[in-house]
Amino acid sequence: MSNEAPRHPAPALLEIRDDRLLLGGFSIDELARRVGQTPFYAYDRAAIDRRIAELRALLPQGVDLHYAMKANPMPSVVQHIAARVDGLDVASGRELTVALNAGANPREMSFAGPGKSERELAQAVAAGIVINIESEREVRVLSQIAAHGGSQPRIAIRVNPDFELKTSGMKMSGGPKQFGIDAERVPEVLRSLRGAPLQFLGFHIFSGSQNLRADAIIDAQRKAVALAEQLAVHAPAPVRLLNIGGGFGIPYFPGEARLDAAAIGVNLRELVPLVARSLPEARLTIELGRYIVGEAGIYVCRVIDRKISRGQVFLVTDGGLHHHLAASGNFGQVIRKNYPVVVGRAVHGGQREIASVVGPLCTPLDLLADRMDLAQAEEGDLIAVLQSGAYGLTASPLGFLSHPEPAEILV
Amino acid sequence: MSNEAPRHPAPALLEIRDDRLLLGGFSIDELARRVGQTPFYAYDRAAIDRRIAELRALLPQGVDLHYAMKANPMPSVVQHIAARVDGLDVASGRELTVALNAGANPREMSFAGPGKSERELAQAVAAGIVINIESEREVRVLSQIAAHGGSQPRIAIRVNPDFELKTSGMKMSGGPKQFGIDAERVPEVLRSLRGAPLQFLGFHIFSGSQNLRADAIIDAQRKAVALAEQLAVHAPAPVRLLNIGGGFGIPYFPGEARLDAAAIGVNLRELVPLVARSLPEARLTIELGRYIVGEAGIYVCRVIDRKISRGQVFLVTDGGLHHHLAASGNFGQVIRKNYPVVVGRAVHGGQREIASVVGPLCTPLDLLADRMDLAQAEEGDLIAVLQSGAYGLTASPLGFLSHPEPAEILV
Repeated sequence: MSNEAPRHPAPALLEIRDDRLLLGGFSIDELARRVGQTPFYAYDRAAIDRRIAELRALLPQGVDLHYAMKANPMPSVVQHIAARVDGLDVASGRELTVALNAGANPREMSFAGPGKSERELAQAVAAGIVINIESEREVRVLSQIAAHGGSQPRIAIRVNPDFELKTSGMKMSGGPKQFGIDAERVPEVLRSLRGAPLQFLGFHIFSGSQNLRADAIIDAQRKAVALAEQLAVHAPAPVRLLNIGGGFGIPYFPGEARLDAAAIGVNLRELVPLVARSLPEARLTIELGRYIVGEAGIYVCRVIDRKISRGQVFLVTDGGLHHHLAASGNFGQVIRKNYPVVVGRAVHGGQREIASVVGPLCTPLDLLADRMDLAQAEEGDLIAVLQSGAYGLTASPLGFLSHPEPAEILV
Repeated sequence: MSNEAPRHPAPALLEIRDDRLLLGGFSIDELARRVGQTPFYAYDRAAIDRRIAELRALLPQGVDLHYAMKANPMPSVVQHIAARVDGLDVASGRELTVALNAGANPREMSFAGPGKSERELAQAVAAGIVINIESEREVRVLSQIAAHGGSQPRIAIRVNPDFELKTSGMKMSGGPKQFGIDAERVPEVLRSLRGAPLQFLGFHIFSGSQNLRADAIIDAQRKAVALAEQLAVHAPAPVRLLNIGGGFGIPYFPGEARLDAAAIGVNLRELVPLVARSLPEARLTIELGRYIVGEAGIYVCRVIDRKISRGQVFLVTDGGLHHHLAASGNFGQVIRKNYPVVVGRAVHGGQREIASVVGPLCTPLDLLADRMDLAQAEEGDLIAVLQSGAYGLTASPLGFLSHPEPAEILV
């Protein structure tokens, strides 16, 4: 490989010792023996803690840190993180159940997502969590639920802003969207809340995800606060909650630069006193999923066969697309790029070669690494896909071709 | 919509009566009540039978029709089809179990796939099915299994041809590939089989899938037969099986023309006597998955919310990407296009409007129809995604955001 070629960023949270990848102090060979099978996902408690500590250091007093558990809803992971953050954000009724089982405080949970079912809304009311309202229909259904007695629904309005999060991996605002209520219609909805049996708490303004540009996130955060200030004038009660989302990205691909999270912290330090003046009862919340767990996890599979076809080396493994769709390039990527993939016992060293890592599926889509520079691996060797702590197992078609499911561990 | 705009092809196998979509004679509203939930997948027995009858009419005597069950491994579907085709092709140990449970004859089953585990290979030997050998490692492992007694492994060599299936949705040959053994190395592998405790039966030459061009498939079939004839010279026993794959595509997107399957039948009628002369003991096999079930199934979800955001209509449903990844455009598509999507009670008629169909997930990827011409739908209406009988449920990330799983029915 030329020194000029863009490289994957070095792992930020995981340990590499003697050229071996370690999670929770164990080599992945040791982990595989403990798990008793490959493939598996492994998440590192200490790595999660390091990331949360970094965030705590840069977030000013007065900003709450929430975990968006859709990034990784493994119950042990949720329980571990719940004890270290200020609240959990759920995206479905089943996520709510896991969040409650984790022992987190329901008062500090919120539920966002278009198309919440009546059952989910009733669950959320019963649990006393904050429901981020995505449409007038949810106002109507919640009012009906409230009319049947029980606790008063606690709501925030999810706003579809009139600005967008620039350069975002996923744009979720700035035009017609299924998320939230268009900013220009929010005043009318707020007026309709007067007299409704709902407790208005504030706003959720989320404009995108997986962004690596601090300036874009700072810009969106400032606009979100300004928008909340404008909308608050129409609110039936003081704004107590102002969730300005997350959007913090992690680097996956060669040449990607890390997000300058410190710059976002500086911006928030400036925003907090402004919000304290304009919305004196409001707590500012940052909601992060991928940024908390993404770099703390890996996916591990074992080389079943080493094949050379027409001069190209293929490491055929027992894992693949069915377990890790995103690494195969089939989840929101337009042009497939390689995730960081390593041979567990020789991350940087070993005899190097160019090899492709594929899975056992009868489809050319089943590609975990396309002609990467890797240590030479043989049958039985373990391969790790880094940056796999978020949107891994649950974002994958586990039933595809009816292969065994991966295990999941937190170490 | 302009008459000039390309349209989705009309359903080939499903019934539309009084502008309502029917499966098994039932409207999808009736099906939803029978299932007791939405979303669900529904597959139509009569539609499958029609497709198989079409194929039987065009395939000459002497060509076996196999079902590649990875396309849809629902046990009832496999059992239904198994009784109507000449054999089943499995892609994993669990698929083999379903195939055996379906009561199909193991002598007429084959197992292809790179990276078969030792357990899967032992299962396949015990069941007495044909194992399509993908590498020298599989020869080695099967020889070891045979040395430990039990039945003699029955094998065919899966060949990575030196030609490609042109214009194919998925190219699986013609260069370095993880599938099969490179054609130029097959003679050496065949020689190595002499004296091995394996029963050689023939070849599997599969060059791609989802192809809508009969001329490309005909070309690949002719080349596959010619390649088998060349390779047979080196074989330790007469060729009894010659699986020349499938590759028959179905139209998904506006403007796509149906495959001219009749032309392929004509070609096969010419090939059969040639094969009878050159490989007199060989049975020619066509292996189809998607083409048998893809057009016989639909995915149904219910409108939970009808939202208008900045002039655009969004039908928010209880189904989405997590149940039907391919329809969201995130499974092997480079540029997202709409699957055929209809409102079940008004396929062609009704008050028309341009609307987007989205799911309940907090991601803009969760898009089942992007600004399509649909009958105006309200809360409670059922939406059907057509062409969903193959690579639907099992090819989707069911755990994504922890929503309920879809049901599956065969009617």
